[in-house]
Amino acid sequence: MTAGVKTFRDDNAVAPEPDALGKLLALLQADMEACNRAIVSRMESPVALIAQVAAHIVAAGGKRMRPLLTLAAARMCGYAGGERHVHLAACVEFIHTATLLHDDVVDESRLRRGNASANAVFDNKTPVLVGDFMFARAFELMVADGSLHVLRILCSASATIAEGEVLQLVTQHDLTTTEARYLDVVRGKTAALFSAAAQVGAVIAARPLAEEDALATFGMNLGIAFQLVDDALDYAADQAVLGKTVGDDFREGKITLPVLIAYQAGSAEEREFWRRTLEEGEQGEADLARAMALLERHHAIEMTLARAADFVRAGQDALAIFPASALRDALIEVGTYTVNRAH
Amino acid sequence: MTAGVKTFRDDNAVAPEPDALGKLLALLQADMEACNRAIVSRMESPVALIAQVAAHIVAAGGKRMRPLLTLAAARMCGYAGGERHVHLAACVEFIHTATLLHDDVVDESRLRRGNASANAVFDNKTPVLVGDFMFARAFELMVADGSLHVLRILCSASATIAEGEVLQLVTQHDLTTTEARYLDVVRGKTAALFSAAAQVGAVIAARPLAEEDALATFGMNLGIAFQLVDDALDYAADQAVLGKTVGDDFREGKITLPVLIAYQAGSAEEREFWRRTLEEGEQGEADLARAMALLERHHAIEMTLARAADFVRAGQDALAIFPASALRDALIEVGTYTVNRAH
Repeated sequence: MTAGVKTFRDDNAVAPEPDALGKLLALLQADMEACNRAIVSRMESPVALIAQVAAHIVAAGGKRMRPLLTLAAARMCGYAGGERHVHLAACVEFIHTATLLHDDVVDESRLRRGNASANAVFDNKTPVLVGDFMFARAFELMVADGSLHVLRILCSASATIAEGEVLQLVTQHDLTTTEARYLDVVRGKTAALFSAAAQVGAVIAARPLAEEDALATFGMNLGIAFQLVDDALDYAADQAVLGKTVGDDFREGKITLPVLIAYQAGSAEEREFWRRTLEEGEQGEADLARAMALLERHHAIEMTLARAADFVRAGQDALAIFPASALRDALIEVGTYTVNRAH
Repeated sequence: MTAGVKTFRDDNAVAPEPDALGKLLALLQADMEACNRAIVSRMESPVALIAQVAAHIVAAGGKRMRPLLTLAAARMCGYAGGERHVHLAACVEFIHTATLLHDDVVDESRLRRGNASANAVFDNKTPVLVGDFMFARAFELMVADGSLHVLRILCSASATIAEGEVLQLVTQHDLTTTEARYLDVVRGKTAALFSAAAQVGAVIAARPLAEEDALATFGMNLGIAFQLVDDALDYAADQAVLGKTVGDDFREGKITLPVLIAYQAGSAEEREFWRRTLEEGEQGEADLARAMALLERHHAIEMTLARAADFVRAGQDALAIFPASALRDALIEVGTYTVNRAH
C-alpha cells in the first residue's frame, strides 16, 4: 500500500472529533449509562401500552442534555455518596419527556427527534396519559430521593414549565407579543428545567447556597440560549441533520424571537404578510420561503443567535466561582457549542 | 292569607332533607370553605388563561367528594393542629381536576358536570396544559406540607391513576376484558385517589398504621362503588338531574361492568350487537335504546349496583376500628348514599 492512499478501513478508523456534548458525555459515561438503566426500569408497567410508548421514546434517544446537566453539576460539586444524582437525572428526563409528549398533542408537529411523533404513531389520547404517568414517575423518584429541598426545586420548575406552556398558547398568533414576554415563555417552557436540573446537582453535594445559585443561573441562561438557537434553526436548519421539520413554528403560528425582530423592523407590507400568515394562519406554498427571506433581510437569525450568545456568556460567567476542573471546562464548552451548532 | 295557600316565600322556606353528602358537608362547613379559598388562591397565575379555566372549573363546582374525604378523615382522627388538612384537601381536588381536564381531551365528552367541558369551551390544547399546571400546583402543596409519608401516598396514587387511565384506553373497544381487569381500571382511574384522600387524614393526625390502612381501605372500596354506580347511571340516569349525558360510555366504546355482564350472558346475536357497536364503533340511532334494553333483560344494572353495594359494605366494615362519632356515622352514610343515589 503506498503512502497517501487510504484504505476504507483507515477512513473508518478516523473517528470524528467529538463535539462539546460528546466530551461531557465521555466524562460521565458510567453515570449516564446508570441513568439510562434507571429510565428504562422506571418505565416498566403491567400496562403494555406504557412500555411500548416508553420504548418508542427511549429508542428515539435525544441528546439527554438535561440529565447530563444534573450529572455534571453533581460531579463537579464533588458528589460521591451514592446514586442520588443518577435517579434525579432520570427524574429530570422524565419531566422533559412528559412535556414533550404533551407538547406533541398541542403542536401536532409531525416530526420529533427525526421520528414520527408519539401521537402520530399512537393516537391523540395516549401521549396525554402516558405523559401523566411519566410525571407521576418523576415525582415518585423525587420523593424516593427524600430531600424536601430537591422536591421544592423540581416541583417549582414543573409549575413554571406548565405556566410557560400556557403562556405560549396565549402569545401564539399574537404579533404584539413583546420580547420580554417572549422570554418569559422561554424561561418557562425550556429554561426552568435546565436551571433546576443543574441546581439539584449542587444540592445533593451539600454545597453552599451560592454554588446552588450559580448552577441555577448557568442552567437558566443555557436553557434560554438553547431555545433561542432552536427558534433560529426552525427557519434555517437542514431537516435531515437535525431531525426537525423546517418551518414547524411558522406553520403553527408560533411567535418566536426571529419573527418578532423581523416584524418590528418590517415595512407595512411586510407586517401585513406576518399578520396574514401567523395571526390569521392563512399560508400558501411560497410563504415559508418568503418568511425566510424576510428574516434574512432584517438579519433576524443573526440577531437571535447574538442574543443567545449573550445568554451563554452570562451562564458561563456564573461558573467562575467553581475551581477549574475538566467538568467545569466541559460545561463551559457546552454553552459555546449550543450557539455554534447553528453556524 | 288563608290556610293551605302557600306563598312563594313559604315554598322556598321548606328546605329539602339534606342527603348524606350534605350532612357530611354540614359537619365540615368551615373546613370546606377554607379549602375552597385555598383552591381559588392557589389557581392564581400571572397567565390569565389559567385563571379563566380555573374560574370555569370552580364555578362548575362538583361535589368535592375527595377533599371532603380528607377533611372528614382528618377530623375523625382528631386532627386539630392547623391547616394541613385544608391544604391537602385542596391538593387532592387539584389532582382530581387535572385528571378531569385530561380526561376531557381523551373522551371528548360533551357534557361534564352539566356544563360544556373545558375543551369544548376553549380548545383541545388548553386543558392538557392547564391540567399540567394543576398537577404541578398539587405537588407544590404536598411539598409545602412537608411530610414525605404524605408525599409518598399521593405520588403513588397519581401514578396509579395514570396507569388506570392508560389501561382504560387499552380495554376500550375490547369485549374480552375480564371483570378483574375492569376492576383494575376502576381502582386506578377512580378509587386510588379516594383511598389516598382518606388515608392522608390519618397520617396528619399521627394515628397508628392500622387506622391509616382502615381509611385507605374505606376510600378504595367507596371509590370502586362510586365508579360502578357511575357506570350504571350512564345507561340509566336522567341527564338533567345528573348533569351527564346518558350513553356517553356507549358512544365512546367504553367497556364497563354493566356491558360485560350483558355481553357474557348474551346470545350470539346479542354479542354481535355489542361487537358492532362497541368494538367496531358502528352505531345507529336506535342502538343506545337497544343497549339499554339488553342491559335490562340481563339485570346488568341491578347486578352492577349489587356489586357496588358489596364494596360499600367492605368499606364501611373497615371503619369499625374507629370509635363511634358523628363524623364516622356520616362517612358510613355517604357509603350507603353512594349506592342509593342510583335508585
